[in-house]
Amino acid sequence: MAARTSTRPKALRSTSQIPLRTLGAGLDTPETLTSRIPLLSPTPHVPGGFAPKAVVGEVVPFGVVAFREGHDLIGVQVRVTSPDGEESLHRLRPRLDGTDRWVTDIALDVQGSWTFRFEAFSDDFATWAHATALKVAVGVDTPVMAALGAELLIRAAAEKDRPVAQRRRLTAIAAELSAADPEHVLAVATDAELSALFAERPLMTLRSASAPQPLLVERTAAGVGAWYEFFPRSEGAKRLKDGTVKSGTFRTAAKRLPGVAAMGFDVVYLVPIHPIGTSNRKGRNNTLTTEPGDPGSPYAIGSPEGGHDAIHPDLGTAADFRSFVRAAQREGLEVALDLALQASPDHPWVAEHPEWFTTLPDGTIAYAENPPKKYQDIYPLNFDNDPEGIYAEMLRVVQHWVRQGVKIFRVDNPHTKPLQFWEWLIATVNAADPDVIFLAEAFTRPAVMRALAAVGFQQSYSYFTWRNTKSELEEFLNGIAHDTSDYMRPNLFVNTHDILTEYLQFGGRAAYRIRACIAATAAPIYGVYAGYELFENVARPGSEENIDNEKYEYKLRDWEGAELAGDSLAPLLRRLNEIRRDHPALRQLRNFSAHWSDDDAVLVYSKHLDAAFTGTGHADTVIVVANVDPHSVRETTVHLDTTIWGVTPGEPFEVEDLLTGAVWTWSDHNYVRLDAFAEPVHILKVRQRA
Amino acid sequence: MAARTSTRPKALRSTSQIPLRTLGAGLDTPETLTSRIPLLSPTPHVPGGFAPKAVVGEVVPFGVVAFREGHDLIGVQVRVTSPDGEESLHRLRPRLDGTDRWVTDIALDVQGSWTFRFEAFSDDFATWAHATALKVAVGVDTPVMAALGAELLIRAAAEKDRPVAQRRRLTAIAAELSAADPEHVLAVATDAELSALFAERPLMTLRSASAPQPLLVERTAAGVGAWYEFFPRSEGAKRLKDGTVKSGTFRTAAKRLPGVAAMGFDVVYLVPIHPIGTSNRKGRNNTLTTEPGDPGSPYAIGSPEGGHDAIHPDLGTAADFRSFVRAAQREGLEVALDLALQASPDHPWVAEHPEWFTTLPDGTIAYAENPPKKYQDIYPLNFDNDPEGIYAEMLRVVQHWVRQGVKIFRVDNPHTKPLQFWEWLIATVNAADPDVIFLAEAFTRPAVMRALAAVGFQQSYSYFTWRNTKSELEEFLNGIAHDTSDYMRPNLFVNTHDILTEYLQFGGRAAYRIRACIAATAAPIYGVYAGYELFENVARPGSEENIDNEKYEYKLRDWEGAELAGDSLAPLLRRLNEIRRDHPALRQLRNFSAHWSDDDAVLVYSKHLDAAFTGTGHADTVIVVANVDPHSVRETTVHLDTTIWGVTPGEPFEVEDLLTGAVWTWSDHNYVRLDAFAEPVHILKVRQRA
Repeated sequence: MAARTSTRPKALRSTSQIPLRTLGAGLDTPETLTSRIPLLSPTPHVPGGFAPKAVVGEVVPFGVVAFREGHDLIGVQVRVTSPDGEESLHRLRPRLDGTDRWVTDIALDVQGSWTFRFEAFSDDFATWAHATALKVAVGVDTPVMAALGAELLIRAAAEKDRPVAQRRRLTAIAAELSAADPEHVLAVATDAELSALFAERPLMTLRSASAPQPLLVERTAAGVGAWYEFFPRSEGAKRLKDGTVKSGTFRTAAKRLPGVAAMGFDVVYLVPIHPIGTSNRKGRNNTLTTEPGDPGSPYAIGSPEGGHDAIHPDLGTAADFRSFVRAAQREGLEVALDLALQASPDHPWVAEHPEWFTTLPDGTIAYAENPPKKYQDIYPLNFDNDPEGIYAEMLRVVQHWVRQGVKIFRVDNPHTKPLQFWEWLIATVNAADPDVIFLAEAFTRPAVMRALAAVGFQQSYSYFTWRNTKSELEEFLNGIAHDTSDYMRPNLFVNTHDILTEYLQFGGRAAYRIRACIAATAAPIYGVYAGYELFENVARPGSEENIDNEKYEYKLRDWEGAELAGDSLAPLLRRLNEIRRDHPALRQLRNFSAHWSDDDAVLVYSKHLDAAFTGTGHADTVIVVANVDPHSVRETTVHLDTTIWGVTPGEPFEVEDLLTGAVWTWSDHNYVRLDAFAEPVHILKVRQRA
Repeated sequence: MAARTSTRPKALRSTSQIPLRTLGAGLDTPETLTSRIPLLSPTPHVPGGFAPKAVVGEVVPFGVVAFREGHDLIGVQVRVTSPDGEESLHRLRPRLDGTDRWVTDIALDVQGSWTFRFEAFSDDFATWAHATALKVAVGVDTPVMAALGAELLIRAAAEKDRPVAQRRRLTAIAAELSAADPEHVLAVATDAELSALFAERPLMTLRSASAPQPLLVERTAAGVGAWYEFFPRSEGAKRLKDGTVKSGTFRTAAKRLPGVAAMGFDVVYLVPIHPIGTSNRKGRNNTLTTEPGDPGSPYAIGSPEGGHDAIHPDLGTAADFRSFVRAAQREGLEVALDLALQASPDHPWVAEHPEWFTTLPDGTIAYAENPPKKYQDIYPLNFDNDPEGIYAEMLRVVQHWVRQGVKIFRVDNPHTKPLQFWEWLIATVNAADPDVIFLAEAFTRPAVMRALAAVGFQQSYSYFTWRNTKSELEEFLNGIAHDTSDYMRPNLFVNTHDILTEYLQFGGRAAYRIRACIAATAAPIYGVYAGYELFENVARPGSEENIDNEKYEYKLRDWEGAELAGDSLAPLLRRLNEIRRDHPALRQLRNFSAHWSDDDAVLVYSKHLDAAFTGTGHADTVIVVANVDPHSVRETTVHLDTTIWGVTPGEPFEVEDLLTGAVWTWSDHNYVRLDAFAEPVHILKVRQRA
């Protein structure tokens, strides 16, 4: 390998291109975009000049269209350069599906800015062997093919980067090739060992190279993780005798961390922890009037006690917060903060930087609005009034929390701020600390959500919550795995404090089970908002949002009591996160394959990871079969493309249900019965053969 | 218009981008790819850095994804710069389909290298009018909206590029706006004339611009034309008493030109006209032995009498050829030559430049082959042996024929030569003479055909001949009109000297009629190989190629006799070419829309061109309804999206069958009866309402 990587791209470029400029004076000789062997449509790729993305350990499919004129065979490889300049070469295989696309999978293991470039070459030995096998077998051109074979073996033997023993051997074979012995010529052309030797180190001519392409590799948590959202003020909150509630604090909330960690989550995400304004504070259920003791929406950020860099006094001090972060770390949890770039009328920014807002002709500051509606507890920033000041302040806020140990930010409604700002902020923050992760909470039109991901957001909320039927889910999951995965990493939250879908409202407990199983297994990032495990399914009438929304009040919940009573989903969540931890195939985004079932409510998919990438030495395959109709029992046949995990169609293999422990012998067509009221989902591990 | 175009892109760029670099020392401030209002995914676009293409007069859909944060309205325009630097501005309209894509159609009227860049702006008047209409109507914020309105009207009045009268009027309206009169404020916000004034010349802020994109506009014949292929040696050939045939000449072939012109064709394409080798000359029906008098394949180019720059002595002299070209020009026909870059063993290149071929170890030159098959009448060039010499010679050959008056080349099997060579050759030839057109005769894998088009071929053969069912044709025609039209212009030949499909072999005369009608109306370029009009449908058994192929012998045909006997398709071809000439909608590639019919053999499509582009002052719409089953009568209902040509669904309109003259009143659902044995196709003109 070392020898091969010594051929620098610079050298390649000069051999792959025809020296057109020497054609002579007076000739118009434009440079060509195509190389001698064309290398087109490289992937991973993001249109618009944005770098494609991956995370450490992610298996990335690399591909390129390559072909040449005539019948001669080619080879294709990709030269990958790590952030510290280390090169490696990887051979591609042709897909052989008429697309001229060559592919290979590579897992990148170092964070940072990589580059890759494809190389193609005429594969002279393979071309000779192929033609010789066809011709000599029918008595055509034996002397010529013998001579050509000897010629190219001698050429190969002259290549100094081949081991000496190999070079001697090739010379010896060349000497023995003789037109007088067609059978021997044929034997050499079809010799498996010789073919393997040249497959390993081809005899190349017409070497061509594509332009280098960028690839940004971020830390694994950017693309893998189980998230748990909660309101710290509710954790440890107590109802007082007067009926009001005493807020939880970081100290009391920290007591919830072992429980969250025990369920196997990786990230705890906190809604804003800053002082809350009192001007036009919202009351319970988003009313315009408050009762005494109403805590207000944490999204109405800022009061005389401080703004985006302050902590709500009810929650504690900056030191308490740092203790909370450390407590989380001890439990193996990372803390994510909410970044909601807006101000309550009481925010210090309003007095100190009125120019950051829109001042109306009557001298007042404009509220957030959706005309004619107004949101009078919030002033939106006007980024165009003082972009330099606002940019610098937002950067300061983020860097403040980074210094407090926070490296993940869930960004509230990023689509209501300039896209350009996010591109700048994320690049600037990541230039100093590439570990910082931003999750875009944008529920808007597809082009906007995709653009936010392309300009830098490491994670994105998605339409998952509104994809409930089998066909919707198949299309959605195929899309995130195969269409947008070069730049977009959806975090499949099953619910949020803003989202309680009709499917959950009216699907009963089965709905909660089904959605958790799919979210946890179909994508490497998913999330749960506290209360999901208690099946909280009552919505404000006519809305898709919890009634008595926690945004406007404290929620007192009895986690342990519910679990003891068997009324909690926590055991299932715990098991799902265990399964995710045990199965590296579930911690990948792009390895999703949908399979057929005869029932229009039975969703079937598999996640497969080749042995080369699991770290365990053997492949990992998980098949999920889900009845997505939470009101019925479904019996049907599922039809699997078992070739994905290397099983010949028709061959039996064992599967083990990771939820129940049941073991079955399956093959490519299998009967299933999924009872929404008992076990709506199979999560099946394909057992490795001995 | 002049005033607006005076705002140079340079000025735009400086106002659209936030001056990040001034944020202060020590800050890492990467440049952003996105502008203040993002402008993403511009079209026309070709991946890989190739310039998108159009032809003079082609209506090109321009589009871009543009959006901004919040509720403020935006506007989008495209600044198009002609090859001589003249700018024009065109406003885009939102598609309003949830894609955030803005579009407009532009026909470019000057040949050469254009550029275009999209611009977006915050549309301040529209934003104010929209919010004011919503708010003042419900009594919200009237004073503020009145003041904001006055402010922006005064701002508009200060813009020096507005006519003085307009500026005075805006000042006056501003002065009258008063919070005391909400109804007047509402009236101003909803005033149609004011809205039109600002639609024409918006009040803009946050102006943003995309990077300039290239667009190559080629002459109309690159994308529009009816081609007729023939073998000049057959035209005027005579059978002698000894049974052999005396070759036709350019003089006798010229006598065929008025007949071809009378059918309405634009281009006559001649198979190679060069001397033919005698070594291993192919006999009739591609046999390896010749009979005396066999003329050989014109693709076995080169003999002692000359090579690619010579004329076969049987056809006449260089002067005869030039006379032929002039005769064609007098008939309104352009001559296209075949460019088949290969040599017979007798080609002068073989002696003068043996290094341009592959010499085998036994000293012989390698024949063309597909192992183990060999084609012993042809030596392929080896472009890698002496690329500079070969490139220069091929350029010389092309330039030689350009000097003889030939500006169109049908390139034989370009996919058997390096792609890079074509990119270079076409760019080099076109740099000197942008009128030269190359048609790629490549029937190979899609990626290769697309790449040839992307690197420069002005036209491409296509899979049309093998797309025969309704669903195949719908997919194919949609693909060429909408997926690849930014770089690929398929020439829908109905047959060639190499292709006689089973559909034609076994579909009877109906098949010939159906395919001609579809080819002539579905795409702006189509072609016919001589003999099609005589329904020549007998193939070499087991092949999709004519028996007694003209490649290996003379064909003596009686065009006039067949037509007199009613056994010729010439009258239909004549009528089809007339219809194409009368209907500009048929001379466009991208305006194809498929419509539904209830019968799986009844193909329905329309071609529509807005009045702005027809040159006649009114729109042009043609609907084609074709029974593609040549063995049956089909009765069914066709369902039209009449909104494409501005007719409300359900409204009646008149159509006239351009083949029969029949007139019907149609609406969106219409009964049709198509008898393959009588009139298998309707070509309907939508009559303009008075």
